Amino acid sequence: MAASLTLHPDRALPLAQGHRGLAREIYQQTAALPLICMHGHVEADVLAANAPFADPAQLLVVPDHYVTRMLVSQGIRPEAVGVRRLDGGPVETDSRTIWRIFCQNWRLYRGTPSRYWLEHELVEVFGVDLVPGAETADAIYDQIAARIAEPGFRPQQLLDRFGIELISTTDPAGSDLSRHADLARQGLGERIIPTFRPDAVVYLDRPNWPEDIKTLAQTAGIDTGTYQGFIAALRERRAAFAAAGGLATDHGHLLADTTPLSDTAAAEIYAQALIGAVSPEQVQAFAAHMLFVSAGMSCEDGLVMQIHPGVLRDHNDAIFHAHGQDVGFDIPQAAEFTRALRPMLQAYGHDPRFRAILFTVDETVYSRELAPLAGAYPSLRLGAPWWFLDSPEGMRRFRESAMETAGFYNTSGFVDDTRAFASIPARHDLSRRIDAGFLARLVLEHRLELAEAVETAIDLAYNLPKIAYQRRVG
Amino acid sequence: MAASLTLHPDRALPLAQGHRGLAREIYQQTAALPLICMHGHVEADVLAANAPFADPAQLLVVPDHYVTRMLVSQGIRPEAVGVRRLDGGPVETDSRTIWRIFCQNWRLYRGTPSRYWLEHELVEVFGVDLVPGAETADAIYDQIAARIAEPGFRPQQLLDRFGIELISTTDPAGSDLSRHADLARQGLGERIIPTFRPDAVVYLDRPNWPEDIKTLAQTAGIDTGTYQGFIAALRERRAAFAAAGGLATDHGHLLADTTPLSDTAAAEIYAQALIGAVSPEQVQAFAAHMLFVSAGMSCEDGLVMQIHPGVLRDHNDAIFHAHGQDVGFDIPQAAEFTRALRPMLQAYGHDPRFRAILFTVDETVYSRELAPLAGAYPSLRLGAPWWFLDSPEGMRRFRESAMETAGFYNTSGFVDDTRAFASIPARHDLSRRIDAGFLARLVLEHRLELAEAVETAIDLAYNLPKIAYQRRVG
Amino acid sequence: MAASLTLHPDRALPLAQGHRGLAREIYQQTAALPLICMHGHVEADVLAANAPFADPAQLLVVPDHYVTRMLVSQGIRPEAVGVRRLDGGPVETDSRTIWRIFCQNWRLYRGTPSRYWLEHELVEVFGVDLVPGAETADAIYDQIAARIAEPGFRPQQLLDRFGIELISTTDPAGSDLSRHADLARQGLGERIIPTFRPDAVVYLDRPNWPEDIKTLAQTAGIDTGTYQGFIAALRERRAAFAAAGGLATDHGHLLADTTPLSDTAAAEIYAQALIGAVSPEQVQAFAAHMLFVSAGMSCEDGLVMQIHPGVLRDHNDAIFHAHGQDVGFDIPQAAEFTRALRPMLQAYGHDPRFRAILFTVDETVYSRELAPLAGAYPSLRLGAPWWFLDSPEGMRRFRESAMETAGFYNTSGFVDDTRAFASIPARHDLSRRIDAGFLARLVLEHRLELAEAVETAIDLAYNLPKIAYQRRVG
Repeated sequence: MAASLTLHPDRALPLAQGHRGLAREIYQQTAALPLICMHGHVEADVLAANAPFADPAQLLVVPDHYVTRMLVSQGIRPEAVGVRRLDGGPVETDSRTIWRIFCQNWRLYRGTPSRYWLEHELVEVFGVDLVPGAETADAIYDQIAARIAEPGFRPQQLLDRFGIELISTTDPAGSDLSRHADLARQGLGERIIPTFRPDAVVYLDRPNWPEDIKTLAQTAGIDTGTYQGFIAALRERRAAFAAAGGLATDHGHLLADTTPLSDTAAAEIYAQALIGAVSPEQVQAFAAHMLFVSAGMSCEDGLVMQIHPGVLRDHNDAIFHAHGQDVGFDIPQAAEFTRALRPMLQAYGHDPRFRAILFTVDETVYSRELAPLAGAYPSLRLGAPWWFLDSPEGMRRFRESAMETAGFYNTSGFVDDTRAFASIPARHDLSRRIDAGFLARLVLEHRLELAEAVETAIDLAYNLPKIAYQRRVG
Repeated sequence: MAASLTLHPDRALPLAQGHRGLAREIYQQTAALPLICMHGHVEADVLAANAPFADPAQLLVVPDHYVTRMLVSQGIRPEAVGVRRLDGGPVETDSRTIWRIFCQNWRLYRGTPSRYWLEHELVEVFGVDLVPGAETADAIYDQIAARIAEPGFRPQQLLDRFGIELISTTDPAGSDLSRHADLARQGLGERIIPTFRPDAVVYLDRPNWPEDIKTLAQTAGIDTGTYQGFIAALRERRAAFAAAGGLATDHGHLLADTTPLSDTAAAEIYAQALIGAVSPEQVQAFAAHMLFVSAGMSCEDGLVMQIHPGVLRDHNDAIFHAHGQDVGFDIPQAAEFTRALRPMLQAYGHDPRFRAILFTVDETVYSRELAPLAGAYPSLRLGAPWWFLDSPEGMRRFRESAMETAGFYNTSGFVDDTRAFASIPARHDLSRRIDAGFLARLVLEHRLELAEAVETAIDLAYNLPKIAYQRRVG
Repeated sequence: MAASLTLHPDRALPLAQGHRGLAREIYQQTAALPLICMHGHVEADVLAANAPFADPAQLLVVPDHYVTRMLVSQGIRPEAVGVRRLDGGPVETDSRTIWRIFCQNWRLYRGTPSRYWLEHELVEVFGVDLVPGAETADAIYDQIAARIAEPGFRPQQLLDRFGIELISTTDPAGSDLSRHADLARQGLGERIIPTFRPDAVVYLDRPNWPEDIKTLAQTAGIDTGTYQGFIAALRERRAAFAAAGGLATDHGHLLADTTPLSDTAAAEIYAQALIGAVSPEQVQAFAAHMLFVSAGMSCEDGLVMQIHPGVLRDHNDAIFHAHGQDVGFDIPQAAEFTRALRPMLQAYGHDPRFRAILFTVDETVYSRELAPLAGAYPSLRLGAPWWFLDSPEGMRRFRESAMETAGFYNTSGFVDDTRAFASIPARHDLSRRIDAGFLARLVLEHRLELAEAVETAIDLAYNLPKIAYQRRVG
C-alpha cells in the first residue's frame, strides 16, 4: 500500500518546543498575506492566453531545471525527460513516461528545496495524497491531469487561488509588450507587469546579438546602428515598460563590475561589435559600462535596478549545443561587490532617485560585502536568497549572516525567482516559515520583542517587497 | 503607554531548556570577572581630562558610526544626525533633535548588535526603563542627561563602575604620549596604556603623510627625511610606548601582505614619497614591507603585533570629502592570509620573542586559513570576531568555524573594539554569554566536561586576553 | 583522585530532547555497519608485516600531525615530541617522555576532533578509563602498552576488531605493489587494496622527481626519458594497480586546474624538466595537464579519480628542512573549481565511464561551486568533509551547505582520511552520529520521513562509499 502524502503544519519550523510554538505564532500572522512576485519568470504569453496547462510532466518536470538537472546528475539523459534538443536529436515526448522516471527517482530530491516545493504543490494545489514512486506515478499523473483540465486551474485563475496580488514577468529589451497590452485589455494590466531585462543586447558577443538589436530598433522605432541610437532605443523601451506598469529592470551579469567607459570608447566598442570584431575584454568592459549607464537611467525613469551577478552560464558546451540555455548547467563563481559596485555608488549611491537590489549566489559576500554596503548606502537593498540559496538552510544562513549588519529594513523582503508557476505559493510559504523561525529565536534569545518580531515578519513577507520596488520618481 | 524596557537575564543564551540552564551556569562563572580592554578606541584625552560627557546624543549617537550609518542607510543625511562636516556645510547641533531622530528610527536596529548593546547601556549604565521611540525620546534624553551630570558618571569613574582592570587607547606613531603622562600622574598609568598605531606613517600616499612624519620626527627627536631616520624614529617611539606601559602595536592594513623589500628598495620608495612621486603599487609594497619590519621590531621590544587587514576604507568619495573618515563607509573585501603572512612567518613564526594576533572581517578565512595557521605557528594567536562580526551570530560562527582546528588556547580571548565607551561592558557581557552557550553545547554533546567548560570560559573572558598581550621579552 | 574517562552514548548527538531521541534512533541503524575506508593513509608495510605497534607515543602521538602541531602551536618544539629530524638534530626518543608531554597538554585539544577521536580510541580500543593529565600519563601509557602487546591488537587483527570490510592504502605511481602481493598471499588482497597517487611524478619541480621517475621507469619496465614513455609508464602502473584490486587514483594538487596542453607542449615541458630547466608556471601547467590526462585514463581503466586540491604544502621552510613533509604546516588557500574543472568536464563530464570525487578544505565552494557541479554532472560525486573539516561542526556545515543543491545521492558518503590507524572507527562513528543528527532534524522539520532518513543514513555510511568507488568499466 502506498504511503500517504500529507503536509505537516509545522514543516520547516524550528525544533525546540518553545521555539516552534513561537515560530508558529509568528508564521500565522503572515501565512495568509497576499503574494508580491516581483521577479517572476512566468511568460506573459501563458498568462495572456490563459490556456490549460498541457499535462503534469510539461507543467512540473520538463520546464523546471532544478528538477531535470537532478535526474541528469544521476546519469539520465536530458532528452529522456523531455528537455528540448536544438540539434534535432530525438526527445522523449510521452509525458507519462517522463512522469514515471521522475517519480521513480523521487529519493534523489531528499533534503532539497525542490522536494519541499513539489510536496507543497502536489498537496495544496493538486490535492494529491500519494507519495511519488514507481507504483504511484500513474495515479498521481491522472489526478493532476484531471485537475489542470478544470477551468479553475488555468493560469489566470491560479493567480486568485495563489493569492497573487502582483506578479512581474521578465521581458527582453526589444519586447513590444503586446502580451501585456492584451493583459491590460483583460483588466490585468496592473496585476501583471513587465520587467525590463536588457542582458541580451548589452552582451555584445551573444550569437543572437545582431538580431536582438534589430528587434530593439524595430520596437523602439530608433536605429541601433550606432551607440547613440542604441542608448536612445533602450531609453525609449524603458519608458514603454514604465508606461506598461513596469517597476524594475533586471541584470544577469557575469560580474558586478560597474566601471563606466567614456561615450567615445563605448561607441567604438559598439561599432566593432557591429562588424563582429569585439574582444572578450571589450565585451566585459561594455557590459560593466552598461550597468553604470542603466543606473543613470534608473535615476531618470525610476525603474528599480535588480543586479544578479556571479553565474557562469552554460558551463558545458555539449549540453548547450544540444539543449540550449537554462537546463541546469549554470554554475556560480566567486563574486565581488565592494570594488565592482564602487563606480556606480560613487555616482548614484546617495541619489534619492536611485535604488538597486543586490542578489548573489556566493554566500561569502553576505557578511563581508553586501550587508556592510546595504547597511551604509541609502540606494541599496539586499535581495532575498537567490536560486540555489532559496532553500530552508540557505534562507537561515542569509538571516544569520546579513541581518546583524544590514538590518531587516535594508532588505527587499521575499522575492521569488521561478520558472515553475505552480511553485510560487510554496516558495513564499517556505520563506515565511523560515523567517518566523529566525525571528522567534531572536525573541527567545531576548534580542527582540514578540510584537516587533510579528511586525518584522509581516514587513518581510509583504510590505518590504512593495516598498523596495516602488517607483521613486513621479 | 510606553512599553517598559528591561533586560532579560537569559538574553543571548541558547534556547533548549537544558542548554540554556547549563549555559547560564557557565556564564555566571564569568559574568563578574574584570574587563581587559586591549583594543580600545577611547581617546586618552577623554580619560585624562575626565570631564562629564556632553549629552546623550554626543555620547551614544554621533560618534558611533554603527549607529549613524544605519540611519544614513535609510536616507537620513549624516549631518542631520550631527556627523561633522569637513567642508563647512551645516550640521545639526541640537542634540535633542538628533536624539529624537535616533529614537524614532529604533526599529531599524532590530536584530543588530547595536540594538543589543544600546539596550544594555540604557538599562545597566543609565537606568532607563523606557523603550526608545518617538514618544519616549525626550524622557530618555532627560534621564541620561541627568545621569551623566553626576560625578559618578565621569569617564574615570566609569572605569570602576564597568570593572575595567586594564584599557588600552590607540595612538598614532607620532604621539608624544603626554596625556598618558597625565594619566600616570593621576595614578592611572598602569590601568590606561597606549597602543602604537603607525598606519598613518607607513601608508605613503595618505594626504596627511608629510605632516605626520614631521610630527613623528619632532616627537622622536630624529630626522625622518630619510628611510633610515624614519625607521629609527619608529623604533624610538615604540620604546617610548613600551616605557609608558604599552603592550601592543596595531596595523590596519588593506592587505595582510608582509613581503619585505631590500633596505635599498625601501629607501628609494621612501625618497620618492618625500617628493610626492610614489605609485599605488609602491605604496602597497612599502606598507607590506613595514609589516615585516614591524614584526622584526616586535622581536626586539616585545610589543605584540595586532593585524587588522581587509577593509577598503572610505568607499565613497563624496562622504569622505564631506565628513572624513570613520563614518560607516568602510567596506570589507576578500582577505588572504596564507600567502600574505608567509614571509613574516618564515622569518619570525617560530621566534619565541614574537607574537602576532590576527583579526579579519572576512569570515571565509576562519576555517580555511586562520585556524590552520594559528593551530601550527607558536607566534600566532587568533583574535576575537572583529567589527561587523562582533555580534551574537558572528561570535557563534567564529567558535563553530575556528575552534576545532585552532583550539581555544591559540586565541586571544575576547578583545573589544569600540569608539563607544559606554558600550564596553555590554560587549564583554555579550561575548561571555555567547561563549557560555557554545561551551554548554559542547558539554551537552559530551565533547567537553562541565569543569573544563567553566575553566575555558574564564580563560576566554579574562586569562587569555592577559596572556596574549603580555610582554614576551625583558 | 583522577577523573574517570567514559564515553557518553549520546556524544555528538543533538540537544533538544526530541531531536536527540530521533537522532539516536537513526544512528542505531548505522552504528554497527562495516567500515569502507577508501582513502586510507595506513602503510601497506604495516599491514603486511603485521608486527605489534611500538608503544603508545609512537602509535598515537608522533605520527599524527593533528596531535603534534597543536603542541607545536603552543611553543613545544617538534623534536621534543618525537617528530623526526632530517638534518640530524637531536630528537626525543623516550616515548614515555613524549607521552607525558602529550597528557600534560590535554587541555589544548578541548573542542577539537582530535580530542574526540582520542577519547574514543582510549576507551573503545584500549579500555582506558582515566582522563589524560600529568598524574595519569604513566598509568595510561602502561595500559595501552600492555594492550598493544596482545596478539589481538596487531594491525590485521584490528581490521576485524574495527569491522573494516575494505581498506585502501595510498601508494606512489612507482610502487611495485610488492606489499600488496604479500597481502594477497595472506588472503587479504581483496580487503586491502592500493590507490594510485602520482603527485610526486606529475609535479616536475619536486626535489625527488628525477629519482621518482627513475623508480617509475624501473617498476613499469618503460623508459621515462621522454614524455611518451612517461605516459606509457603511468598507464602500465595504473593497469597494475587495477589488477591488484585498486579502485581509485588520488590527486593532491595545489590547484584544481585541468587545462590540457597539446602533446607537443607537454613533451617540451617534460624535456625541460629532465634538464632541470622548468619554470614555476610550466610546473603548474604540466600538473593541470596531467589532471586532464588522468581523467582520460580513468575512462579507459575505470579507476575513480579523487581530487584533493587547495593546500599549500610546507608553509614554513625551516620546519620543512628540519622535519620534512606532513608535520602540520600545510595550510589551505582559497579554492576555485567552476572554471578549473571545466576543461575536464567538457571532455569527460558526461562520459559514463568517468567518475571523479571532489574534496575541498575551502568551505566557501560547498554551496557556490561543488554542490551545483555535483548536482548537474553525472560523472561527479562530492566527497566527505576533508582534513580540517572532518569534525562535528565541519560535517554539519557540509550537510547544511551542500545537500540542498547536490542531493545526498551525488555524494560519496563517508570517506575517512587518516594516518592514525586506531582513529578509523572513531571517525566513522562520529560521521554516523552527525549525519543522524542532521537527518533527524530534517525529519522533525517535516522535510523527510523517518524511513527515508534511516535509508539515507545507511546509504551515507555504507552503500554510497561502495557505489562511488565501484569500477565503472569491465
